[in-house]
Amino acid sequence: MKKKSKKVNAAILVIGNEILSGRTQDKNVAFISNWLNSKCGISVSEVRIIPDLEKIIIKNTQELSKKYNYVFTTGGIGPTHDDITARSISKSFNAKYEFNDEAYKILENYYGKSEFNNARKKMAKMPRGSKLIYNPSSAAPGFVIKNVLVLPGVPSILNSMIENCKSFLVKGSKVYSNTLNLVTVESTISKELGLVEKKYKKFSSIGSYPFFRLGKVGVSVVSRSTSLVKLKKINQDLLRMIKLKKIKIQKF
Amino acid sequence: MKKKSKKVNAAILVIGNEILSGRTQDKNVAFISNWLNSKCGISVSEVRIIPDLEKIIIKNTQELSKKYNYVFTTGGIGPTHDDITARSISKSFNAKYEFNDEAYKILENYYGKSEFNNARKKMAKMPRGSKLIYNPSSAAPGFVIKNVLVLPGVPSILNSMIENCKSFLVKGSKVYSNTLNLVTVESTISKELGLVEKKYKKFSSIGSYPFFRLGKVGVSVVSRSTSLVKLKKINQDLLRMIKLKKIKIQKF
Repeated sequence: MKKKSKKVNAAILVIGNEILSGRTQDKNVAFISNWLNSKCGISVSEVRIIPDLEKIIIKNTQELSKKYNYVFTTGGIGPTHDDITARSISKSFNAKYEFNDEAYKILENYYGKSEFNNARKKMAKMPRGSKLIYNPSSAAPGFVIKNVLVLPGVPSILNSMIENCKSFLVKGSKVYSNTLNLVTVESTISKELGLVEKKYKKFSSIGSYPFFRLGKVGVSVVSRSTSLVKLKKINQDLLRMIKLKKIKIQKF
Repeated sequence: MKKKSKKVNAAILVIGNEILSGRTQDKNVAFISNWLNSKCGISVSEVRIIPDLEKIIIKNTQELSKKYNYVFTTGGIGPTHDDITARSISKSFNAKYEFNDEAYKILENYYGKSEFNNARKKMAKMPRGSKLIYNPSSAAPGFVIKNVLVLPGVPSILNSMIENCKSFLVKGSKVYSNTLNLVTVESTISKELGLVEKKYKKFSSIGSYPFFRLGKVGVSVVSRSTSLVKLKKINQDLLRMIKLKKIKIQKF
């Protein structure tokens, strides 16, 4: 019997004025997306970057959580006045914004009673009914409510927490990919590439991306499919084209 | 007479499967946003990253172009089958997708008649009525239609074109910013910072961002305002707090 491929998708909602203003370069989108692709067979279908404004966080959380299987938010769960993600997401789902007992204990234990001030206590507040995403690097947990997974903005902390998201996710079919780095320019291969893409459209996607690396100029052709068999066939077609056009493959 | 500050905003629409999948790290958002902030007094209010799918490009272009003063798109204007931005944006505005005479001449001249193949000719097609954004590095121009500025995805090319966007933009009031890098943790200053933020809420925004740099841990406090006078007052309040709390300032 042929196994049917199962598509599971996600959106990423980056919350933070510092990313929007260009002050800070986002690194979480590529990290989360790569992890979801390779470890969970989940593809990211949309990313939005929005400011730390309650109304906007609420609207986007509601929209994206209806539209996709999962939503990952990053940023805005620290102790300061501009960290309003947990409160805003509570409002998105009409859930009470309150102390989570387990999170409170984790943080109290981490800081010690004397250092556990009000600002730090705030990091234990989240929507009622949330489940915790444990944080092995700096204690303050993320949380899951409905299909929304709430993570911090600091990349090193987020990275340390990502494996703890796994138990909340239903896996999709793994998407395999294959890259050919060609010593050519896009316009030389665009016609043939378009034909290959059309032929396998149902089962795959093919993208072409110019590169400038180590003084070399070329085109990376990336094919993706949930079927390894189809991917192999696409590769054969591409290699045939490359041979015909006398294009060299660049090894990095 | 008091000069009223004028707010001009923009959205960035990043078009490309390679960014969504995490294969390529986006660098254009931070670049465009910084440039708009510092050179044009325009702040980016929203960013979306979407796949190379016509329907989705059309929907997002229409939505964002209604919502913001300007929309900058990046990606999808090259010569291959997955470069569908220009055609999709034509459809967004019910404009005919056709050869732009000036763009055609620029490209023909750049490549020479014998090398100007169909794939390259495609880069001269755009919505009727577009104005060109000249490209000093690789000839193929971007274009402007209504309030949408269409740019390529390759950062070095986009960077070379950005100054040519200026003549299409109405400037907003310049937003000044001031950063204090403090040797402290967020929870130590969150209460006082919240008070300063509240006091100046009408005229400014204050953000706090933990940093880990060169082995140092601390918090960057960033204040932004269109008024230099207010910014100075905020800084005075912050310095008072820092002195009271005996917090050191970190110089990088």
